[in-house]
Amino acid sequence: MSRRIALRLEYDGTGFSGSQAQLGQRTVQGVLEAALESTTGEERRIEFAGRTDAGVHATGQVAALDTQREYSPATFRAALSHVLPEDVAVRAAAEVGQHFDPRRDAVSRCYRYEIEDRRERSPLRRHRAWQRRRQLDVAAMAAAVGQLPRELADWAAFAAPAAEGYPTVRTLLDMSVRRCGPHRVSVSVEADGFLQHQVRRMVGALVEVGEGALTPAGYAELLDGPPGSVGPTAPPQGLMLVAVRYPPGTVEWDDE
Amino acid sequence: MSRRIALRLEYDGTGFSGSQAQLGQRTVQGVLEAALESTTGEERRIEFAGRTDAGVHATGQVAALDTQREYSPATFRAALSHVLPEDVAVRAAAEVGQHFDPRRDAVSRCYRYEIEDRRERSPLRRHRAWQRRRQLDVAAMAAAVGQLPRELADWAAFAAPAAEGYPTVRTLLDMSVRRCGPHRVSVSVEADGFLQHQVRRMVGALVEVGEGALTPAGYAELLDGPPGSVGPTAPPQGLMLVAVRYPPGTVEWDDE
Repeated sequence: MSRRIALRLEYDGTGFSGSQAQLGQRTVQGVLEAALESTTGEERRIEFAGRTDAGVHATGQVAALDTQREYSPATFRAALSHVLPEDVAVRAAAEVGQHFDPRRDAVSRCYRYEIEDRRERSPLRRHRAWQRRRQLDVAAMAAAVGQLPRELADWAAFAAPAAEGYPTVRTLLDMSVRRCGPHRVSVSVEADGFLQHQVRRMVGALVEVGEGALTPAGYAELLDGPPGSVGPTAPPQGLMLVAVRYPPGTVEWDDE
Repeated sequence: MSRRIALRLEYDGTGFSGSQAQLGQRTVQGVLEAALESTTGEERRIEFAGRTDAGVHATGQVAALDTQREYSPATFRAALSHVLPEDVAVRAAAEVGQHFDPRRDAVSRCYRYEIEDRRERSPLRRHRAWQRRRQLDVAAMAAAVGQLPRELADWAAFAAPAAEGYPTVRTLLDMSVRRCGPHRVSVSVEADGFLQHQVRRMVGALVEVGEGALTPAGYAELLDGPPGSVGPTAPPQGLMLVAVRYPPGTVEWDDE
């Protein structure tokens, strides 16, 4: 009998050409499918809750797979982590319903974006943060995100150019900016879904606010611009997929 | 006229065979001396405040060099950081007295050691922390470090085997343990000086306290053991040289 297993993944995106399988590229999906095959002997396609670009990290990506094996979720977790390369691990596992879809069933995604604002580059943070030379005005950035709508809105201005007719309305559930060190600024954002590059464009324009090139009021007005008009796109290494949330009872992780 | 310049360095120790020059190895000293030569045309030996092992990081290592050039400390900082590889940078610079000795003039060194205590390994922290599977008892660890002497004491038990007659008395100035995340424990330690591998042995035994294999009272008693008797030696990647302190007026960094 076929069972469906959900996995919660952590990965260092530095060495991956993103999450989704691409011919001839090292991807999270590719190494995970190879690990599954070496663990269970099954060749299966693994689905992800969200696509992450090359260089983007995750502490809470969610994947799902079908299996004929009768291993417990904990056995799947331990066995896969054991054979996976050092830059990816399974943090938790769960048996889920036959029709669980990690992408469509998600009610929200949470991302964090980290920026270092200091004179000299930071070798220790080079793969984890966007490095800006000037001190950011975090109060102005917080005022800017406070003016974004927390209801259904069209985010096309913040998206990479998409196919004609692709729906671009999403609901921003939460967004905050805080300084968490003398030279570190963290942006947290949660929405029911994000368009491609949306978070990185939201952060790119937000840093312009922090550097005084854009006002907080001007930031919210960007939403009214034409599709794909907002920039710059913040670089990938500052971005982390922190969590994907599901309706209660959908996924019971084995560490909660 | 020869001038003396002090540099405050940050580096990611992952790709270095330690701080000190070794023939045929990539070291912090080696790349810094090469950067100095390409910047000033001078072949000079650069001295360090403290030796860090392969894999050990720094946010506050201090180095010193002699130069005939008349560049300002800020120019040295920017020019060196520009030519240095991405895993090392100069955070600050200062002109110091002709007789400044970064090692002997230091009044204290501050190190931090980070441990992740959780069931599954963390890909994102693999080069930054010691990963332990069991949850650590931080209260017991704090009780243990509270019993260490804060006065001149013989630390030979915590040192790597040293040459006969090498002085092993040091003064521990401060040591604390705190949990700074659900799965992260940070140990901070400051002393007038440390013996080779002392911090890593202090942490290795401290984790035994945190895992219940050693009592807090037993931890302080380790000091009475024979030279080199304390173990295990915690792995290098959790260790960071955070700061080297000098008497007031000795070094006026250009970012303070």
